[in-house]
Amino acid sequence: MSFQNPVFIPGPTNMPESLRKACDMPTIDHRSPVFGEILRPARDGIRKVLKGGKAEIFIFPSTGTGGWETALTNTLSAGDKVLAARNGMFSHRWIDMCQRHGLDVQVVKTPWGQGLPADRYAEILAADKGHEIKVVLATHNETATGVRSDIAAVRKALDAADHPALLFVDGVSSIASMDFRFDEWGVDIAVTGSQKGFMLPAGLAIVGFSEKAMAAVETAQLPRTFFDIRDMAKGYANNAYPYTPPVGLLNGLNEATKMLLDEGLENVFARHRRIADGVRAAVNAWGLPICAASPDLYSDTITAIRTPDGFDATKIITHAATRYGVAFGVGLGEVAGKVFRIGHLGSLTDVMTLSGIATAEMVMADLGLDIELGSGVAAAQDSYRNSGQSFQVAAE
Amino acid sequence: MSFQNPVFIPGPTNMPESLRKACDMPTIDHRSPVFGEILRPARDGIRKVLKGGKAEIFIFPSTGTGGWETALTNTLSAGDKVLAARNGMFSHRWIDMCQRHGLDVQVVKTPWGQGLPADRYAEILAADKGHEIKVVLATHNETATGVRSDIAAVRKALDAADHPALLFVDGVSSIASMDFRFDEWGVDIAVTGSQKGFMLPAGLAIVGFSEKAMAAVETAQLPRTFFDIRDMAKGYANNAYPYTPPVGLLNGLNEATKMLLDEGLENVFARHRRIADGVRAAVNAWGLPICAASPDLYSDTITAIRTPDGFDATKIITHAATRYGVAFGVGLGEVAGKVFRIGHLGSLTDVMTLSGIATAEMVMADLGLDIELGSGVAAAQDSYRNSGQSFQVAAE
Amino acid sequence: MSFQNPVFIPGPTNMPESLRKACDMPTIDHRSPVFGEILRPARDGIRKVLKGGKAEIFIFPSTGTGGWETALTNTLSAGDKVLAARNGMFSHRWIDMCQRHGLDVQVVKTPWGQGLPADRYAEILAADKGHEIKVVLATHNETATGVRSDIAAVRKALDAADHPALLFVDGVSSIASMDFRFDEWGVDIAVTGSQKGFMLPAGLAIVGFSEKAMAAVETAQLPRTFFDIRDMAKGYANNAYPYTPPVGLLNGLNEATKMLLDEGLENVFARHRRIADGVRAAVNAWGLPICAASPDLYSDTITAIRTPDGFDATKIITHAATRYGVAFGVGLGEVAGKVFRIGHLGSLTDVMTLSGIATAEMVMADLGLDIELGSGVAAAQDSYRNSGQSFQVAAE
Amino acid sequence: MSFQNPVFIPGPTNMPESLRKACDMPTIDHRSPVFGEILRPARDGIRKVLKGGKAEIFIFPSTGTGGWETALTNTLSAGDKVLAARNGMFSHRWIDMCQRHGLDVQVVKTPWGQGLPADRYAEILAADKGHEIKVVLATHNETATGVRSDIAAVRKALDAADHPALLFVDGVSSIASMDFRFDEWGVDIAVTGSQKGFMLPAGLAIVGFSEKAMAAVETAQLPRTFFDIRDMAKGYANNAYPYTPPVGLLNGLNEATKMLLDEGLENVFARHRRIADGVRAAVNAWGLPICAASPDLYSDTITAIRTPDGFDATKIITHAATRYGVAFGVGLGEVAGKVFRIGHLGSLTDVMTLSGIATAEMVMADLGLDIELGSGVAAAQDSYRNSGQSFQVAAE
Repeated sequence: MSFQNPVFIPGPTNMPESLRKACDMPTIDHRSPVFGEILRPARDGIRKVLKGGKAEIFIFPSTGTGGWETALTNTLSAGDKVLAARNGMFSHRWIDMCQRHGLDVQVVKTPWGQGLPADRYAEILAADKGHEIKVVLATHNETATGVRSDIAAVRKALDAADHPALLFVDGVSSIASMDFRFDEWGVDIAVTGSQKGFMLPAGLAIVGFSEKAMAAVETAQLPRTFFDIRDMAKGYANNAYPYTPPVGLLNGLNEATKMLLDEGLENVFARHRRIADGVRAAVNAWGLPICAASPDLYSDTITAIRTPDGFDATKIITHAATRYGVAFGVGLGEVAGKVFRIGHLGSLTDVMTLSGIATAEMVMADLGLDIELGSGVAAAQDSYRNSGQSFQVAAE
Repeated sequence: MSFQNPVFIPGPTNMPESLRKACDMPTIDHRSPVFGEILRPARDGIRKVLKGGKAEIFIFPSTGTGGWETALTNTLSAGDKVLAARNGMFSHRWIDMCQRHGLDVQVVKTPWGQGLPADRYAEILAADKGHEIKVVLATHNETATGVRSDIAAVRKALDAADHPALLFVDGVSSIASMDFRFDEWGVDIAVTGSQKGFMLPAGLAIVGFSEKAMAAVETAQLPRTFFDIRDMAKGYANNAYPYTPPVGLLNGLNEATKMLLDEGLENVFARHRRIADGVRAAVNAWGLPICAASPDLYSDTITAIRTPDGFDATKIITHAATRYGVAFGVGLGEVAGKVFRIGHLGSLTDVMTLSGIATAEMVMADLGLDIELGSGVAAAQDSYRNSGQSFQVAAE
Repeated sequence: MSFQNPVFIPGPTNMPESLRKACDMPTIDHRSPVFGEILRPARDGIRKVLKGGKAEIFIFPSTGTGGWETALTNTLSAGDKVLAARNGMFSHRWIDMCQRHGLDVQVVKTPWGQGLPADRYAEILAADKGHEIKVVLATHNETATGVRSDIAAVRKALDAADHPALLFVDGVSSIASMDFRFDEWGVDIAVTGSQKGFMLPAGLAIVGFSEKAMAAVETAQLPRTFFDIRDMAKGYANNAYPYTPPVGLLNGLNEATKMLLDEGLENVFARHRRIADGVRAAVNAWGLPICAASPDLYSDTITAIRTPDGFDATKIITHAATRYGVAFGVGLGEVAGKVFRIGHLGSLTDVMTLSGIATAEMVMADLGLDIELGSGVAAAQDSYRNSGQSFQVAAE
Repeated sequence: MSFQNPVFIPGPTNMPESLRKACDMPTIDHRSPVFGEILRPARDGIRKVLKGGKAEIFIFPSTGTGGWETALTNTLSAGDKVLAARNGMFSHRWIDMCQRHGLDVQVVKTPWGQGLPADRYAEILAADKGHEIKVVLATHNETATGVRSDIAAVRKALDAADHPALLFVDGVSSIASMDFRFDEWGVDIAVTGSQKGFMLPAGLAIVGFSEKAMAAVETAQLPRTFFDIRDMAKGYANNAYPYTPPVGLLNGLNEATKMLLDEGLENVFARHRRIADGVRAAVNAWGLPICAASPDLYSDTITAIRTPDGFDATKIITHAATRYGVAFGVGLGEVAGKVFRIGHLGSLTDVMTLSGIATAEMVMADLGLDIELGSGVAAAQDSYRNSGQSFQVAAE
């Protein structure tokens, strides 16, 4: 097992040295006051990263999937109606979870590569005079397609219909890398994990609840214990957990939020955009289409790249791994075999990204695609040279 | 925050250097074959530690509490009947979880300090001619009281009644430290976590399912997604997870099982008994009663020590932490304020244990208890000197 | 190989977690300005630890022995006269080095267990009207015998004779643990290493030169290149080294000086005294003599303990290692087989020390010495309980 | 300080994860038998890496410079005659050290960029009928110019003249990366350090002595103590050191030799050649001359690249560091300002190397050099794609 090359999967990301060290912590007593000095600032930091000044933050030893389940089981009851669009693998899975928990999901089928259909949402919400829809689900950044949707537009749809439904947003692959505005967008529950923008190992589900979402907890009938935020809130009141917390990982999360806030959120977002611009310049130079249907949908954390018809894109992932020791992301679901994905989030530099682009070129050439060696690299170099940025030291 | 002194809480334990390094792993692609080389041997190793040759092993990014929920939601439906005894905080919590998930729990109230009432179980099971009881819950080692129960006796009760109920065992604070016999005892689901006998940070729920438990999954109606073992099994078939796994922690688990099996399970158990014997010798020398009602109930991983009436045992924990930088376990639930607990599981030596005993003596003397300095240490030294063991290097 | 128990050798010491992490540093360019941000504050910090405001600090990839050689070769020429006392293994070795480098050493034989004979120095210096003696060597803390000498008295002897000889002090096992006053004592060269009071791995020779010592460099004829401080000084002027520096270890040194200065030097010294007092109380309780001849000579970093006549003290070291996994210091030179040594410097707590004392008791009892189990522990507990200190968190 | 990008300096190299962990070791007793289990295999491993079956291996807490001093002071006396060529900064410095130690060096001036002049050596040795020349110095790989010399040819020159002079070889930047044949080439002393082919932090001087060199130790008069191999040999006989050894770094060295031997030395050398070929292809594509005068002199660990007349090559290093966070090697001595150097030794992959090449292109373009973006990358990609190698996992 080699750890030499950076990874280019859409999370877990490359980890900063300092965060690895923060996670690698000897055992302390998680019931002692010292633990509060980790937990409290970590929750405060996340609140700031979410731009959710009034959000209640809960952190579970789990993953983003557990975060989804936290959102649903704490606010809904069997048979409750949910509105959602299926425009990629992760929105698909969240819908599937709703159905397995006995919720009634109105699914708006949406082509993969498109963003959330805020217009359709608006029509459906306007038509729902009886306010049967309890929750609207929204995947901010579809990790499978590299599509970022417009959450403000979804909020507008709700407001236009004067609809009281809660707005739940999956921000797993956007939060801490791209702009997210919990308060401004009127998000009721935001879900993310530790292994993407926070640059940590997987193992934490991070959720923010609005006041309105907190109120829904009282009446929700779906059974839950592990993910019950009432137990968690009771624990937090004593700087503790209802069960044994993963202290080192929480310590890492605390450091990660400090690191992000020290760099400045807008700088973090600009850095992701700069690196993404280079990747997109390379893809253009290769003459391959980006899966996201239009530039306004381009994700700054993941680019899914369509390969020519008849070519099995999965071979790129296998060949890159076995021949060059580099990991890219495979196509999932409807776009399996049709795209490969370059993750460009978390701890990454222009220079590291160039090595991923160079590798993709070698791999595609090896597999017979008509790619000129160095062409994507040159385009990305051009993009990075002219970005007007000096070297980012804050990311470490 | 000081990391100099060992901790004496009943988990998370002191961590071996090698396991910390195994957990502190750079990012790899969790969808690559390399991940299988971690996951497969980790699951095989756990199967051996459980002595459960036929058990299906599932590992969730969660905690022991999540392991309980995995057991219940994958095998039961709302309204199903469960038999359980409440003899400590952790059995209490599992019962509570059952009730919150809509199960009908027949609770056998049992004094804290006593083991599971296998005789009462036998009577109840024999009386349940209609086999309405679907599951019997058993807490192998009550972490709150330091009581180890006789699981073989519970199995015998089931067999004597020829009762088909499933046997679910909480082995969180026993597995990998004290003998556990999944196959021989006819356990249907065993639950544990990463942070006790496996000497790792918290963050993993580890569960073993018998063939009979696997069969129950097909008919269980309780909603679940994150903890659904069917998704997990499907993932494992491809050496993958249904969501992002905590790779470093799993790597640590793989190394932990290797370390335990290399030392030899019987040696691991003997080591825990040897260390526990020293602690118990010290407690006897102090003239304080052990919470566990009789020697056959003594746990080899935790000793709960009763302090004199009128004394608030919680002060021991606070004073030890603030004055000497040492963490002991607080009394919980019915024995809050009445006991303090010394955890003696995981990565620990005779020598480290002596420092915990010496600290407890200073603390109790500082707080006015009539404890002769050095008395418990001398008794433990005597015990360790005569244990006939040479220094255990395998534990590192 | 087990890393579970603390070590009780007189260095290398137990390492604080934070210093291990500071040393474990990825590769940087040691010719880049970043390196200066490590080197400059490290040198400044050492100057403060030495209380040598005017000292020039040099740090070599070497050990204390290399520090001695740096002192001699940079200031002396073959045939130069040196005054020294031999009162232990380390003063013996420095004398040996002088002789191997062609220096003419006037050796004052001194019983092991005694301090430096300042009175004899005074006589000899007064008699040296021609000022042939160029250097007086002084071992501040004899690691072999646990004897701390009075450097101020040596300075007084020089001043009384109005003698211009340079004063070279070996502070390897005192600096950063016991009070050292470079300026006040008129020290011309102080020598130490990374692995004692600085709590780091071995690998650095640390030396401070006075202005007078710097002047001697110009005329010194002993050949040197690796240890030539002129090359080093030239390098430092550019924040660089004349060869490749051990960057991680220097980073650790920088952090170590910060940690010590943050705690406060007087607090660091008091902490060492407090811990040493407990060890000495234990030795008294055992009824064994301390090697240092009188209390004013007691070292706060090492206690050498005499065992009864006819008993081979070396067996204690071997038995402690193989039976209990604990390392003590062996007797060296004239006291080989007659003493064993407990190192109590660096990163250590009262609680850790008690485990060393408890181990020594078991070992001595195992080997047939008439030691009452728990007796030394009780005496040390008594000492620690009444020290009036709350838990030291700064040492981490 | 960012640790994200790989370094491209000619040592210290990028470190494998496993070696960092091997070095980051808690304190053990360096006088215990455990230490022998580190020292013995480390020395054996180095012997194999040197292909010096009969070599005595000594490892000092020092650097390559200390290794040179070890070689000289253990075998020579003031006034002894030494033959050496000055063809770069490091041969220059070794000559300077000889002179500072009172040796009489016959210097063969050689253009920088050329290899050692074996023909001139042959003439001089043949003319030295009285065998006054005691030692011939040879720098195997000139780190300043990226020139590898032919040591077998120097041996041939000695043999042709039937000259008994010892052959001392500086292999600091070749050993463990390029083929080195201690026995076959009749090397008498080989010198290297920990921070190049062994991929560790700086801090160790590693030297191998032939039987003939060992014999010379008996008569050598140069003063030495720290570097005296007689003390070291005496220590090794007891698995110990004459002073405190840097245990963690030695543990890393032991692991490094295992890693190299597991991969297979010839595979290690081929890997370095493959990566170097890609760098050289890039340099050719840029149309810049390589400093080494002819392909037979090309080093597989460092490439020094001449920049156009009138351009200050030092700007490349500064700009790469501040604008892109990447470290290259500066020109030294006669070629200062005229070359920049790409280090390509140690823990490096094709993919990492491509990022260095891409960075160099951006830097040169930014500074106004006429370099086509992507041109060097494309040439290197072509080289790596056709190398017929699959991904090297052994280097981790």
